[in-house]
Amino acid sequence: MAGPVSPLAPAAFPALPEIAGVRFASVAAGVRYANRTDVMLAELEPGSAVAGVFTRSSTRSAPVRDCEAKIGADTSRAAFLVNSGNSNAFTGQAGERSVAEICAAVAQATGIDAARVFTSSTGVIGEPLPHERIVAKLGELNAALEPAGIEGAARAIMTTDTFPKGSTETVSIDGKPVKIAGIAKGSGMIAPDMATMLVYIFTDALIDQPKLQDLLREITDRTFNCITVDSDTSTSDTLLMAATGASGVNVTGSADFAAGLERVMLDLAHQVVRDGEGATKFVEIRVTGAASDDDARKVAMATANSPLVKTAIAGEDPNWGRVVMAVGKSGAEADRDRLSIHFGEILVAQNGWVSPAYDEEKAAAYMKGQEIVIDVDLGLGSGEAVAWTCDLTHRYIDINADYRS
Amino acid sequence: MAGPVSPLAPAAFPALPEIAGVRFASVAAGVRYANRTDVMLAELEPGSAVAGVFTRSSTRSAPVRDCEAKIGADTSRAAFLVNSGNSNAFTGQAGERSVAEICAAVAQATGIDAARVFTSSTGVIGEPLPHERIVAKLGELNAALEPAGIEGAARAIMTTDTFPKGSTETVSIDGKPVKIAGIAKGSGMIAPDMATMLVYIFTDALIDQPKLQDLLREITDRTFNCITVDSDTSTSDTLLMAATGASGVNVTGSADFAAGLERVMLDLAHQVVRDGEGATKFVEIRVTGAASDDDARKVAMATANSPLVKTAIAGEDPNWGRVVMAVGKSGAEADRDRLSIHFGEILVAQNGWVSPAYDEEKAAAYMKGQEIVIDVDLGLGSGEAVAWTCDLTHRYIDINADYRS
Repeated sequence: MAGPVSPLAPAAFPALPEIAGVRFASVAAGVRYANRTDVMLAELEPGSAVAGVFTRSSTRSAPVRDCEAKIGADTSRAAFLVNSGNSNAFTGQAGERSVAEICAAVAQATGIDAARVFTSSTGVIGEPLPHERIVAKLGELNAALEPAGIEGAARAIMTTDTFPKGSTETVSIDGKPVKIAGIAKGSGMIAPDMATMLVYIFTDALIDQPKLQDLLREITDRTFNCITVDSDTSTSDTLLMAATGASGVNVTGSADFAAGLERVMLDLAHQVVRDGEGATKFVEIRVTGAASDDDARKVAMATANSPLVKTAIAGEDPNWGRVVMAVGKSGAEADRDRLSIHFGEILVAQNGWVSPAYDEEKAAAYMKGQEIVIDVDLGLGSGEAVAWTCDLTHRYIDINADYRS
Repeated sequence: MAGPVSPLAPAAFPALPEIAGVRFASVAAGVRYANRTDVMLAELEPGSAVAGVFTRSSTRSAPVRDCEAKIGADTSRAAFLVNSGNSNAFTGQAGERSVAEICAAVAQATGIDAARVFTSSTGVIGEPLPHERIVAKLGELNAALEPAGIEGAARAIMTTDTFPKGSTETVSIDGKPVKIAGIAKGSGMIAPDMATMLVYIFTDALIDQPKLQDLLREITDRTFNCITVDSDTSTSDTLLMAATGASGVNVTGSADFAAGLERVMLDLAHQVVRDGEGATKFVEIRVTGAASDDDARKVAMATANSPLVKTAIAGEDPNWGRVVMAVGKSGAEADRDRLSIHFGEILVAQNGWVSPAYDEEKAAAYMKGQEIVIDVDLGLGSGEAVAWTCDLTHRYIDINADYRS
């Protein structure tokens, strides 16, 4: 299933700074893939607050359930252990046993309390996780921990991602720098079976765990919860964030810190869309003038998830009728005669009809670009939202119709 | 965009009986298509109760709004006038004027009160309807009305449907026959732009209009509201039913009549799925054991709409992990350890894991069939639902990514 790197990929993996209080290692454990790293370990110094946001799937995986239960106020030493190649989802009681075995083995190798070991798994589902292959590598992983290992970690968590994903910001607070660095994996629901979006963010900021948890959930709602590749929800989506406090700078309540974190999360979210299965175009759907923000979100996501909108974009067709359709089906309050639609700067429709100024040739030329912006103004109120998606191409079907191999 | 007839099409258009009190005509008016009929007229004798169910889109078309407003207790002479080629949707105030012009012209040609003329339009959206082309043919249509014209009507309402759709039942009530005959068009949201599902059902039964309306809405919920091709909602979906009363048999409250009507509606609904854009497999998703019927419906529709389930079926892959994913994302109450999944007769998964008896070769062989049944039992309660869909293939993208022409 290895394909070419997405045409929407950033030019290069960014240079991520070392974050005081965090060390990384990665290793090839042969969980499923040959000739590549597939397990990463991150070790967090004492004082680290850990927060998490997880898939809302009711069939979420054993590692997700275990992680969720461990999120709390404890700031003792901690570890993130992630494998690719097998998601340990829908593996019954065996799944929980695998998580327990891995946590116990990480505890033994690192001296970290098993209650502070957070694991994630991504890859094929429904097959027992060969956890003994991971356990066998823990001594090696522990010995290899180093502050500069984050890019290796980003590569070890890839499944059919076509590029590793990283992002960073340094925020100045009271004249002192606070660093944020994050990595992610995700490409839609990935062949050979469904897979996941996994995100790990590290900062040397000092912040209370409940405040970090609230901030993470709030920003997730405007970033990772506003992207879609195919409308399908993973059983394994996990976002974990650690604040080590090593900078000594307390960022509780800092708008600058929140803004920096949001830039990192948005960048990673966009990179997931840019690696969407078969994607050739990056699409931003901006909705304004809705009766409420919630209504605006409904319209944005209905448009971003519509197979007909996404195939039209793949075909470089400025098919604004399908946008009208998506508005109509969204469940949001809408009035045909107040609706206006722009493709980029081009006014397409207004007052319930195609604009008299609309020039289809110009719109068709615009659709040939790699970055498409669709603006929908409902003309009703001040509610707004943005969603990001990609086009739906033949390659999506190639990737997902292929027999698992 | 003309393609081969769907491999899932019935062998032939059924022989539909004449319904006393209804006459049909169809004509080539050149609304958009060349060399084919594109307007149909049905005339209903006095005493005809008319009921309707319509799209819930908030951007629904001018004809839909007009039809909805006209449904009521009046049983005077009535007419259905339907054109293909242009949906008269998102055409601003001009759309309403076109509907009014057509209704007035039908009234003039037939002597039927304009308040009893129900119109539908299907085809490209956002372009003004050239209603004068339809108006010019009304005299010819009126002169051609005949009881046997229903198959011609079924053909005139097609857009990119690959076959005309009809269904019939004769129900015996107190020893007297009551006839039901219906026609439909629909193939998903159709190139060159979005299009619609339109359905017209005729019976010689005698029934109070409010009872007919209730019955139609209730059965729609179990038939047309349980099918999906691509999860997108048309601006023009219309189901109109006329009961002429000509048989003299009062069917109010008759379970036999309701059952016959449901068979016709289900058959037409299935035919729409069988003509789904690019479809090569007809898929039935049966959900049982849910906490409520509503929960069962959520699981059935989440599975039927999932691009990953649909591409797996296209690839003949018994990928039950994606069914687990769809259950998880549906929002319905679910417990991994109580879930069981069958593909046809093959038990795939139970107790939160793949069944020990599961034979992937057998399942892969099953997936090569043209009719696929997926059974999901949630093991929680007695809620149940069924949904019907088709697979998602390359041809869907070909049809929908093509520039409107």
